[in-house]
Amino acid sequence: MSKGAAEKVTISLDAMGGDNAPVNEVAGAIETVENNDGINITLVGKAGLIEKELKKYSYNSSRINIFNAEEVIEMHESPAEAMRKKPDSSLVQGLKLCRSGEADGFLSAGNTGAVMAASLFTLGRIANVSRPTIGSRFPTERGISLVFDVGANVDCKPLHLLQFAVMGSVFANHIYGIDNPKVGLLSVGEEKSKGDAVTVETHELLEKSGLNFIGNVEGRDIMKGETHVIVCDGFTGNIVLKFAESVLSLLKTKFKDYADRGIINKLKVGMAYGTLKDILKDFDYQEYGGVPLLGVNGVSIIGHGRSSPRAIMNMAIKAEQMVRAGINDIIAQKIKDINEYKI
Amino acid sequence: MSKGAAEKVTISLDAMGGDNAPVNEVAGAIETVENNDGINITLVGKAGLIEKELKKYSYNSSRINIFNAEEVIEMHESPAEAMRKKPDSSLVQGLKLCRSGEADGFLSAGNTGAVMAASLFTLGRIANVSRPTIGSRFPTERGISLVFDVGANVDCKPLHLLQFAVMGSVFANHIYGIDNPKVGLLSVGEEKSKGDAVTVETHELLEKSGLNFIGNVEGRDIMKGETHVIVCDGFTGNIVLKFAESVLSLLKTKFKDYADRGIINKLKVGMAYGTLKDILKDFDYQEYGGVPLLGVNGVSIIGHGRSSPRAIMNMAIKAEQMVRAGINDIIAQKIKDINEYKI
Repeated sequence: MSKGAAEKVTISLDAMGGDNAPVNEVAGAIETVENNDGINITLVGKAGLIEKELKKYSYNSSRINIFNAEEVIEMHESPAEAMRKKPDSSLVQGLKLCRSGEADGFLSAGNTGAVMAASLFTLGRIANVSRPTIGSRFPTERGISLVFDVGANVDCKPLHLLQFAVMGSVFANHIYGIDNPKVGLLSVGEEKSKGDAVTVETHELLEKSGLNFIGNVEGRDIMKGETHVIVCDGFTGNIVLKFAESVLSLLKTKFKDYADRGIINKLKVGMAYGTLKDILKDFDYQEYGGVPLLGVNGVSIIGHGRSSPRAIMNMAIKAEQMVRAGINDIIAQKIKDINEYKI
Repeated sequence: MSKGAAEKVTISLDAMGGDNAPVNEVAGAIETVENNDGINITLVGKAGLIEKELKKYSYNSSRINIFNAEEVIEMHESPAEAMRKKPDSSLVQGLKLCRSGEADGFLSAGNTGAVMAASLFTLGRIANVSRPTIGSRFPTERGISLVFDVGANVDCKPLHLLQFAVMGSVFANHIYGIDNPKVGLLSVGEEKSKGDAVTVETHELLEKSGLNFIGNVEGRDIMKGETHVIVCDGFTGNIVLKFAESVLSLLKTKFKDYADRGIINKLKVGMAYGTLKDILKDFDYQEYGGVPLLGVNGVSIIGHGRSSPRAIMNMAIKAEQMVRAGINDIIAQKIKDINEYKI
């Protein structure tokens, strides 16, 4: 399934997904093809709206296609129901293009639950993968820190966590170029006896996994960046991710309150703000968009509802990398290897 | 067990607990009695060391006592074992002073697990409380946000979470003066169907609890400060707490790296740093010390290993408030009420 460097990779993009759709999606598609020779985009959604938006730009029309889909899945809809009731939605149709091979990868900034459900249903799972997983990159002091799972699976068994570790390692290796990525298990203490029942059992599996398992890590280690892949259930991962996403908003409010306390404070904040913004851009989840859904039989990336055009381009680049690396073939092989270890 | 305003409250303070013991403990004791007429301190630990440290200060010696205890429980020791092997430790002896009534409350900046275990063992549980809980205050945009549990109980049943909510509400009400505190259940979505199995079941219990339950809240809501008491298992709570504690360290590193990139950056950071420090003091867990252990038959507060003298004073003040409010009698009553609701 990998593609040679000379071939274009086609990404189907759910044009109706994000909060500001199709405005940011169309702008993101334009930004993508302008800056990335290897990527073509198929915008999937209401053709009329998409065309109207595209008219604002001049671009190479051979590289951006439109695929009409009349239905839209909204943010608040129940994933399973929405998928069933709206077969002609941009989400379902975009994924079908991947299944049929008309596209190589799929992106959406829409309803996360619906994207996961529709991806799983439409693309199916990679052989032997029990549960697909979504992972997120966290800001770090230095280095790469990816947390799997951040919300696809709230109740997990040790085997699931082991598989997240395998898939996360492949992703860190082939997408971030990290040799033999360090894998940590998120827990409440370093000792292997620390943690809830599932975590303690998972520790045993990871020790035997052949992965570069460094043991338990704690909440404070996520942003150190010394552990490349951190594994946890999707309940904990999702809560920490959303907590992290709120740090920037807290700081903004604090700055504002401080500035409101007088003219001197206002000046101080004025001077500090640009510096802070520069320094904190890693916390801006709108900017470095997208969590990959690993374990499905295709490439599917889910963006933040507020994804900027830049974030959409970054997601498209990630999808292209995943396609060119043939990441799913590698995952399939590694999951098979783990099974043969009789873990 | 509450005390009148005219009576002194005596706090036994584990003088050997923190990373810098007994230096910060003694300084904290001095700071406490100087600034709080209602609190006397009994420093528990190696008398020789404590006396030597006390000699650095002039203070009213009728308000600070020493209780000799020759053993010290170290940070790395296994809680259960340490407690058994070191009956003459400052930790165990300090708690015994509470049990016998010679002290009204206890503080330690030592090994968290050991303080929890020794408190539970020495003081016992409040009637009908299944599991004592530790809670932590989080920085917020505005308002108070207390999360229970942050590490005492990694595997929880719905009944435990319900009891954390009850105890947390009493604490928010009587210590922070919040009428009818809003209680939220930490989960991965607002709908009551969202979350892992334990959370979904707990939602049902909380709805029937008579508490001011506002439903599920997410990771991003913790620092908003709109929900006074947020309930979760100690696995998730501990990971989020330690993640939050690491935000300041991440920012410091980012600032430093930015400054190192050139003289202009250095100047910018120089100007911004003071402002930032002012704004971020809420993130400084060393400063607003202490997580209360609720549900034990006595007042016990656990501080950060790096607690400053100010943090120790703040913990002593919190302990005094808990004693004067008779918080455990109230908890006992509320837990009984909940049981009678047949939840």
